[in-house]
Amino acid sequence: MALRAPGDTDWMAAAAGLARRGRPASAPNPNVGCLIVKADQVVARGWTQAGGRPHGEAVALAAAGVAARGATAYVTLEPCVHASARGPACSDLLIRAGVARVVVAVQDPDPRTDGAGIARLRAAGIEVTVDVLPADARAAMAPWWTRQTMGRPFVTLKLATSLDGRIAPADGSSRWITGDRARAHGHLERASHEAILVGRGTFEADAPRLDVRLPGLEDRSPKKFVLTRGAAPEGWTAVASPDAIEGVDSLLVEGGAGAAAAFLAADRVDRLLLYRAPILIGDGKAALGDIGLTRIAAAHGRWRLADSRMLGSDRLDVYERVRTI
Amino acid sequence: MALRAPGDTDWMAAAAGLARRGRPASAPNPNVGCLIVKADQVVARGWTQAGGRPHGEAVALAAAGVAARGATAYVTLEPCVHASARGPACSDLLIRAGVARVVVAVQDPDPRTDGAGIARLRAAGIEVTVDVLPADARAAMAPWWTRQTMGRPFVTLKLATSLDGRIAPADGSSRWITGDRARAHGHLERASHEAILVGRGTFEADAPRLDVRLPGLEDRSPKKFVLTRGAAPEGWTAVASPDAIEGVDSLLVEGGAGAAAAFLAADRVDRLLLYRAPILIGDGKAALGDIGLTRIAAAHGRWRLADSRMLGSDRLDVYERVRTI
Repeated sequence: MALRAPGDTDWMAAAAGLARRGRPASAPNPNVGCLIVKADQVVARGWTQAGGRPHGEAVALAAAGVAARGATAYVTLEPCVHASARGPACSDLLIRAGVARVVVAVQDPDPRTDGAGIARLRAAGIEVTVDVLPADARAAMAPWWTRQTMGRPFVTLKLATSLDGRIAPADGSSRWITGDRARAHGHLERASHEAILVGRGTFEADAPRLDVRLPGLEDRSPKKFVLTRGAAPEGWTAVASPDAIEGVDSLLVEGGAGAAAAFLAADRVDRLLLYRAPILIGDGKAALGDIGLTRIAAAHGRWRLADSRMLGSDRLDVYERVRTI
Repeated sequence: MALRAPGDTDWMAAAAGLARRGRPASAPNPNVGCLIVKADQVVARGWTQAGGRPHGEAVALAAAGVAARGATAYVTLEPCVHASARGPACSDLLIRAGVARVVVAVQDPDPRTDGAGIARLRAAGIEVTVDVLPADARAAMAPWWTRQTMGRPFVTLKLATSLDGRIAPADGSSRWITGDRARAHGHLERASHEAILVGRGTFEADAPRLDVRLPGLEDRSPKKFVLTRGAAPEGWTAVASPDAIEGVDSLLVEGGAGAAAAFLAADRVDRLLLYRAPILIGDGKAALGDIGLTRIAAAHGRWRLADSRMLGSDRLDVYERVRTI
C-alpha cells in the first residue's frame, strides 16, 4: 500500500464535493468526483455527467490535457476497467494520460471492477493510495452505493410539521404549514432525487402539484411512485410496499403519515428532512402513523443530526440514520 | 427630557443582565438591576435581593460608597418613592448619594411611583433620562411586569417531545424522552420559577419527582399547583383553570398534554421551552390536546424563536409569544 501524502484528505474532500454535483443525473451510474492536482495546484475537475457518461475521470482528464502528465488524480471511486461502447475504461485513460499517482477513496463494489482497476494502475507503474476519506465518498455517492450494496434505493423522508408534530388541523384543511423558503427548499430536494413517492391520500389531494417548480429546474421532475395496493394512474408507478421499489437509486418520500410510517416501520429511511414551522396546532393530523415501536429504548440512537438551518422563520433539521452494519 | 449620552444603551443592557439575577427570588418585588458608572468605569452593581429587599439601587449605592458622588446610575425601573419599614425610598437614596444623573429604562407602572420617582430626582437637580432599552428591561423583569400590568403570572410552557411531537409511546410507558443534559436544564428552569403547575394525570404519575434536583439548588423548589376541579393534596394548591392562578409572578407549566393545551387555549403562555430528542415514536401520546385552533392562518405569527441550543443530542428551542398589544 502506498503511503498517504500531505493534503490527500483535503483534496479528497474536494473530490467528494465534486461527486455530489453528479447527483441524481448520473444514475444508474455512480456519481464519481475527480480532481487532478499537480505541484499543489488544481489542474482540472470532473464529475460523472447526466446519463452516466462521460465518467468523472474522463471529464477531468479531457480538461487537463497534457497537464495531467505526472499529476495526482483524486477519485471518489476506484476507476473502472471495463471498456464499453459508450466510452473507454477510466483506468486505461489514467495510464494513457501519464498520471504519476492515483488516490482512491473507496474500492468499487461492482464485481466488474472490485480491485481490478487498482491492480491495472499499479501494473502500469502508477502509485495508488486507497481508503482516503472512504466515509465521505460513500456519503457523496450514497444513492448509488446503497443500491449497489443493499439492492434498494437511498430513501429520504420529508416531514413538514408544526412545533407539536402536526401536519394539519383536525379538519385536514390547509397543506401550507411551512413558508415560501422551506417549500422552495423542498422543491430543490425533489429535483435532486431520482424518484418521489406519496401515499394514496396525498396522491389524491396533491398529485397535480408534485412537480419541481423552480425556474430552470422544471425538467428535473422525478419519477413518481404511489404506495397503494391498487392501480396507478398514468405517469405513476404503483408499489405495494417499501421493499417493492425498483429501478431507482434515490427516493424522496413526500407524504403522508401512512406512507412515512410504512417506510420507517420497514427501516427503509436513510435520511430525514424535518421542516418545522413556528406554530402550534394541538389536536390535528399527526406526522406519522404507527411505526412499530414497542419500547422507547428502541427509539434511541437511531438518528444523528447532520445539518440544521433556518429557512425564513421555519427550521430545517436533517437527520441521518445511524447504521452499525 | 434629558438627552441620551453615548454608551447609555450598552450600560443599560448590562443593568438588564443584572436584573435577571434577581429572578425569581425578588418576587413579589420587581427584580431591578442597577449599574453605577463614573468616567466610563463601572463603580458598582446591584440587583434586588431575595424577598425583595434591599432594592437593586440600595445594593449598588452601598457598594459604591462615596464613589457614587457625581456618577450616573442606570436602573431598569424607575426608582421608588415610598419608604417602608423594610427600607428607604430609592429615589431618596440616589439623591443622598449625590449621583449626577439617573438613566431609567421604564417608568414604574406601580401607582405608588408611576412618575413620582423621576419627578423627585429632577426636583433635587439630578439629570434624568427615561426610556432607554425599555423592551430589554421589561423582558428582564417579565414575570413582575406581566403580573403588575396584566394581573396574571408570566407563564412558561415546557414540552419534551420526540421529533414527531410525541411525549410517550401509545402504551404510555417511559417518561424519559430527553437525555440527562436536557433534564438538568429543565431543573434549572424549575428553580428559576416561582411556581410550577401540572395536570392531574402528571401529578399522579410524577408528583414525588417535581422538585429541583440540582446540587445546591434543592431549596429553590417552587410552589406547586395542580390543574384540577378536585381537591389538592398536601403541599399543593388546586386551580380549576389557567385564569385562577394567583399570588405568583412566574409559572412553569410542566405537563401533561391536557394542562398544556388548557393554557394555550386560554392564550396564557408567554414562553415555550421545546426540548426535542432525536427519536421518532409514531403512534403515541401527543404533546398537546385541543388548543381551540380552527383555522391554520390563526396559528401563524404567534411565536418567535428566541434561543436555540443543543443539550447533548437533544435540541432546546425557546419561543416567545408575539403580542401586539
